[in-house]
Amino acid sequence: KSGEMARLTQFVDNEVFRAFATYATIVLLKMMLMSVTTSYFRLTRKAFDNLEDTVSFGTGETAKKLVRTHPDVDRVRRCHLNDLENIVPFFGIGLLYALSGPELSSALLHFRIFTACRIIHTFAYLIPLPQPGRGLSWAVGYVVTFSMAYNVMKSVLYL
Amino acid sequence: KSGEMARLTQFVDNEVFRAFATYATIVLLKMMLMSVTTSYFRLTRKAFDNLEDTVSFGTGETAKKLVRTHPDVDRVRRCHLNDLENIVPFFGIGLLYALSGPELSSALLHFRIFTACRIIHTFAYLIPLPQPGRGLSWAVGYVVTFSMAYNVMKSVLYL
Amino acid sequence: KSGEMARLTQFVDNEVFRAFATYATIVLLKMMLMSVTTSYFRLTRKAFDNLEDTVSFGTGETAKKLVRTHPDVDRVRRCHLNDLENIVPFFGIGLLYALSGPELSSALLHFRIFTACRIIHTFAYLIPLPQPGRGLSWAVGYVVTFSMAYNVMKSVLYL
Repeated sequence: KSGEMARLTQFVDNEVFRAFATYATIVLLKMMLMSVTTSYFRLTRKAFDNLEDTVSFGTGETAKKLVRTHPDVDRVRRCHLNDLENIVPFFGIGLLYALSGPELSSALLHFRIFTACRIIHTFAYLIPLPQPGRGLSWAVGYVVTFSMAYNVMKSVLYL
Repeated sequence: KSGEMARLTQFVDNEVFRAFATYATIVLLKMMLMSVTTSYFRLTRKAFDNLEDTVSFGTGETAKKLVRTHPDVDRVRRCHLNDLENIVPFFGIGLLYALSGPELSSALLHFRIFTACRIIHTFAYLIPLPQPGRGLSWAVGYVVTFSMAYNVMKSVLYL
Repeated sequence: KSGEMARLTQFVDNEVFRAFATYATIVLLKMMLMSVTTSYFRLTRKAFDNLEDTVSFGTGETAKKLVRTHPDVDRVRRCHLNDLENIVPFFGIGLLYALSGPELSSALLHFRIFTACRIIHTFAYLIPLPQPGRGLSWAVGYVVTFSMAYNVMKSVLYL
């Protein structure tokens, strides 16, 4: 049993995998923070999606009125969805890229730029910063993911 | 060829990986069931997003009126989106955690609690149960994912 | 260091993994194209979610009027979300399936059918084609993912 366990420690010994695991965890945690940010805006703006969520703010008609939208809540929701749309491909393609044996320096460059882009994107969306701040941070992260996809295809293509 | 094949069977021999694969498949299948649940509510409540989807219910003005929202459809859609927002980080961080060589007992505890939380969350959302039922099931699953992220970082941190 | 690197090249040598990496990258890239398609429709239909995005089209009241919905934008957004809901389970379950040591021919069949279905689904959604074109392409991809989940469970079940 401990022999079997030992086999998977190859991942912990591989620097590219460790770098991927570190940056992937950072961006996934960042994405998870959007849930808490949404809750914060829902509670402070008193704008809920479900009647049962308004229970601590009133009952009857008072409660029903709190089932509503609010621009600040909508904004953080869009930011969260944009994270899903971009971090899912980064995780999937990035994992395959990390397993396809890239150079460590090249891998680190991809992971670091993407992570920086998504953090900048979040601030640009929530503050909000004037365009093209948000657009550029999105686009650079997008190109980084494409670059990893190109490298995966070059290493493993099997149709 | 069979030699190459053999190499990846290390995963099937590793208990932590097998546990992750089992629970990850369960929560992903649970998430997929939300698609069918949405279809069920769309068909029974006659509330569609696309005009071409109303074809078996009428034509012309009758059809156009069925392109509408319905509270029951919206509720299951929100539940599905909440699954995406939480099961994606669980899958990503959980996979990295499983590959970082944790104790089997500790890994099983994480996977089992998260899976139970998401199943409870679904029932709490769709019935719906009064709060804080849904809130708690969401929060415990969230903390479990954070705990795995902490363990990944402790094992592999490489910035 | 190069010894550690070498260990992960097992993946590049394994045909099932290479096939998974190829098809998973194709569907993830396809999903990423929905972002660009959304931008294209937003710019040509002049329908934006954020006031700061309208900056090149006007200021003041003119700009505010461009923060609106448009049926073409909504349609591509729904197509993108449907991709997320279906490609996330495909990636997760498909990766576990690829690591569980399936027959190459069986794995290729799963990956190819799913990939074809999602490409057909996108055209069926955006053109749009009359039903049941889109419904069928969704359903076949769904069944393929279930079939992989069944095979994962058969190989690794550990509760």
